[in-house]
Amino acid sequence: MTQATTDPAEFRFIAIARALEPIVSALRPGDRMPSLRRVARDHGVSLATAEAAFRRIESDGLIESRPRSGFFVRARAGVPVPRMPRRTTLALRPSVAERVRALLESVRHPEVVPLGGATLGPSLVAHESLSRSLARVARTAGAAGLTYEAPPGSLPLRRQLARLMAEHGVAVAPDELLVTVGCMQALQLGLALLCRPGDAVVVESPCYYGLLQCAEALDLKVVEVPAHPTTGMDLDALETVLATQRVACVLVTPSFLNPLGALMPDAHRKRLVALLERHDTYAIEDDIYGDLAHERALRPRPLKAHDRHGRVLYCASFSKSLAPGLRVGWLHPAGFMDRALTLQFTQVLATPTPTALALADHLERGGFERHLRRLRPLVASQVTRYRDAVCRAFPDGTRISEPQGGFVLWLELPAPPGSDVTLQRLCLERKIAIAPGSIFSARERFSQHIRINCGVPFDERMGRALGVVGELVRRL
Amino acid sequence: MTQATTDPAEFRFIAIARALEPIVSALRPGDRMPSLRRVARDHGVSLATAEAAFRRIESDGLIESRPRSGFFVRARAGVPVPRMPRRTTLALRPSVAERVRALLESVRHPEVVPLGGATLGPSLVAHESLSRSLARVARTAGAAGLTYEAPPGSLPLRRQLARLMAEHGVAVAPDELLVTVGCMQALQLGLALLCRPGDAVVVESPCYYGLLQCAEALDLKVVEVPAHPTTGMDLDALETVLATQRVACVLVTPSFLNPLGALMPDAHRKRLVALLERHDTYAIEDDIYGDLAHERALRPRPLKAHDRHGRVLYCASFSKSLAPGLRVGWLHPAGFMDRALTLQFTQVLATPTPTALALADHLERGGFERHLRRLRPLVASQVTRYRDAVCRAFPDGTRISEPQGGFVLWLELPAPPGSDVTLQRLCLERKIAIAPGSIFSARERFSQHIRINCGVPFDERMGRALGVVGELVRRL
Repeated sequence: MTQATTDPAEFRFIAIARALEPIVSALRPGDRMPSLRRVARDHGVSLATAEAAFRRIESDGLIESRPRSGFFVRARAGVPVPRMPRRTTLALRPSVAERVRALLESVRHPEVVPLGGATLGPSLVAHESLSRSLARVARTAGAAGLTYEAPPGSLPLRRQLARLMAEHGVAVAPDELLVTVGCMQALQLGLALLCRPGDAVVVESPCYYGLLQCAEALDLKVVEVPAHPTTGMDLDALETVLATQRVACVLVTPSFLNPLGALMPDAHRKRLVALLERHDTYAIEDDIYGDLAHERALRPRPLKAHDRHGRVLYCASFSKSLAPGLRVGWLHPAGFMDRALTLQFTQVLATPTPTALALADHLERGGFERHLRRLRPLVASQVTRYRDAVCRAFPDGTRISEPQGGFVLWLELPAPPGSDVTLQRLCLERKIAIAPGSIFSARERFSQHIRINCGVPFDERMGRALGVVGELVRRL
Repeated sequence: MTQATTDPAEFRFIAIARALEPIVSALRPGDRMPSLRRVARDHGVSLATAEAAFRRIESDGLIESRPRSGFFVRARAGVPVPRMPRRTTLALRPSVAERVRALLESVRHPEVVPLGGATLGPSLVAHESLSRSLARVARTAGAAGLTYEAPPGSLPLRRQLARLMAEHGVAVAPDELLVTVGCMQALQLGLALLCRPGDAVVVESPCYYGLLQCAEALDLKVVEVPAHPTTGMDLDALETVLATQRVACVLVTPSFLNPLGALMPDAHRKRLVALLERHDTYAIEDDIYGDLAHERALRPRPLKAHDRHGRVLYCASFSKSLAPGLRVGWLHPAGFMDRALTLQFTQVLATPTPTALALADHLERGGFERHLRRLRPLVASQVTRYRDAVCRAFPDGTRISEPQGGFVLWLELPAPPGSDVTLQRLCLERKIAIAPGSIFSARERFSQHIRINCGVPFDERMGRALGVVGELVRRL
C-alpha cells in the first residue's frame, strides 16, 4: 500500500506506519489510537515523525483525527474492498450500449436521487468564476471570440494546458496538444488513431463503461485485464496478454480509475511504459480524475510523464473538476498529430471558441487552482461520508472500495449474480439512480456490483436513499 | 449541358432551348429575346412549351425575365457558368485528407488574403447580439449553465430549432432533434449511422471536400454524380446509379451547394425523395447554406420537407449564417435516433452547455432573424461584386458560377489540367489563399477549377488580390 522510497527520513515514518497497522487492526472502529507522544517514545523518533506516520495511516483510510481529541480507528476498517477479478478475459466485442442508455436516461430526471452518474453536484461546480470568465470573453473578444478555431484549437488555451501538464511533470509544447470536446472525444480520437475495425484493445476490469461503448461503436474487441482495487491494472496479467496476442493499444486510467478509485503506483507506471515499448504497442491514458487526489499534496504524475518514446496518448478534461457542461478536453496524440488533425476536422471541423477562450481566461487567472484547493478536501470528505453511510446501511458481506481520488464508490454486494440490474430497477421505482456493475465489463462480469456517485454533497436525502438501497440489497 | 430524358414532351422543350442558345450568344447583354409567340410559331409548339424552353435557358443563367416585359439576355451572359461533369464516376475511396490539410493551413494565417475558406468576415458575424446572449447566460444560468447536457442536448435550444424547421416547412418535435458540434458532426453522425466500412455513398460532383474527407475517415467509397451549376445534382444520373448499384446513402446539398451555389428545384426534390423510396435508400441533407438565399423572399423548403417516410436525415448549423466559432449544429436522424444518441455519447458524451443556452437565448429573442435580414442582401451584393471583379481580372475563357445563395464562387479556368494546385502555390507565395478545385472530387476532377470565398466584404485589398490571381491564371 505504501511505496518504497529512497529518502531515509521519509522511509522512517513509513516504517512506523507499517508497524502501527497491526495495532489498528487489533482495535475496534471508534477506539482511540495510542498517543503520538507514546508512539514517538516507543520508536525513538520525533513527534513530527510520529505524526507523519499517523497521517499516512489516516490517508489510507484506517484512522481519522478528531479536533483536540487525537486519532481514532475509522468505522470502515472492518469492511473489505471488492475482490479483484481472477482472470483476464478473451477478446470480445462489447455490447453495452443498450444498458448504458437505460442508465443515462434514469439519471436525467431531476427528481431522481443522483447516485447513478459520476457528476459533481451543482454547488461544487466552479460556476461563479467560470461564468465571470465567459462573460468577460463575451464582452471583450469581439468577433474573434466567435470565429473558427480550426484544429488543433485555441492557442491561448493550449498554452495553459501545456503549463498544467508541465506542472504535472510532462514537458510539452502547445502545438503538441489538440483541443477536444471533452475527455470522451479525446479517448475516442485516440482509439480511432490507433485501431482498425476488428482490432483488440486492453481495458481494465472493471472500467468506465463509456470506453466499452466507444470500442463497440468503433467495432473493436476488448480484452479485460483485472484491476486491483488499490493499485489498478494488474501488470502481470497485462504482460501475459501482450506476450500472447496482438493488441492495438492499452486503455488505462492510472489515477483514480473509475469505478475503483485505484491509484497505480509510480513503479507500476514505469513498468507499464516499458511493457509498451517491449511489445511495440501504445497506451491511451485517461487522466480525467488525476486532479482529484484525496490527499492534498498528491497530484499523481501521469503515465505520460514516464513516456520517452511516444508510446502514450494522453487524454484529460475539466468535466470532473471544474464543470461538466464546458466540454473542453484535450489530447496529446504522441506521434499521431497529423492524422489527429484530419480526424478532428472530419468529426467536428473545429471546437467551440467561446468556451475555449473562457477556460483559457480562467486558467490564466489561477481560477482552476483556487477551485481545486477548495474542491479536493470537500470531495475527500464527501466520499468518506458516503462510505460510512453505506457501511451502516448495507448488509454484512458488502465490500466497498477505498478510493484514493475521484468521487465514486464501487460496491460488491452479498447478492446473487445478476442482482445489479434488478436492484437498479427496484431503486428507480423508488426514484433513486444507481449504476449497475455489469456495464463496467463487456463480459457483464460485475453483476453483483454497483457504483455509487459521491459527487453531490452528502445530506439527509442521500442518507435516506442509501438506507433504501441497503434495505433493497438485504431483500435481494 | 442538359441530360437526355425519356419523356418526349420534356425532350421537346429541351431541344428548343438548345436551338435558342446560339441566338442568345449572338445577342448582347440587355437585349430583348425573341417573343414567346414567335418562338412557339417558329418551332410549331404551344406557348407553354416555348415558355418551358425559356425557363430552361433562364435556369442556366443566360437570360432573365422582367415583369410584364419579356425575356432579356442577362448582363453577365458574357461569362458562361462552369461546365457540368459529363459522367458519373465509379465508386472510389477518396484520399483528399493531405491536400485539404494544406488548404486549411494556408488559410490560418491572418496576413493571407482569405479567398480560400468559406467563411464570413468578422464584420458579418453576429458577434454583438450573440455576445450579449453569452454574457446573459453566464450571468443568469448559474450552475445549470455548466452542467451536462447529455444527448439529445439542450431542450430550450431544441425547441427553437424545431420552431425554425417548422417555419421552413418541416414539422418536427424537439425530441426528434439531436444537438451536434456544428453541421460537420451532424453529417458525420449521419454517415456513421447509415454506412458500414466499404459501403458506397453518392455525392455531388463537385461537392464540399469535408464530405470526402469524412467518407475517407469512415472508410467509405464515393460515387460522384454530376451536379448542374444551377439545379444541382443530376437526378437522371442518380437514378442510373441507384438502379445499378447498392449505395448506403446519398449526400446532397439541395440549397446552395458548395462550391456551385446551385439550388435544386422543388420538383427535383420531390423526385429525389421518390427515388430514395423506390430504391430503398436514404439521403443525408446538408442544409448549412439554406438560410443564405440571395433573393429576399426565398428560403428554400428543405428536402426533408418532402420526406414522408423517414428517408432523409437532416443536418444544419449556424456556422455560415451567425458565427463559425459557436459550433452548434443539429441532426434530424429520421428513424435512427436511438443509435444516434449512443453514437453521440461515444463521440463527445455531451455537447457544450453555455453555447447551446446562448444560442437558444439568441433565437428566442429573434436575434437570428434580425441578423439574417441584414446579412442576406449584404452577402448577395458581395457575391456580385466579387463576381464582377473576377470577370474583369480573369482571362477570356474563364467560366464562373452564378450562385443563388451562399458566398462562394466556382471558377473553371482556361488552363491545363492540374493547374489548380500550381495556382494555389503561386497565390500563397503572394499571400493569397484560394481553394484548388481538385479537392472537391475524389477523382481530382476539377484540377482546372478554383473556389473563391466571397464571405469577407469586398474592398480594394480583395480587388487587388483577384487581379493578382487573374494575372497568374493568364500566365499558367
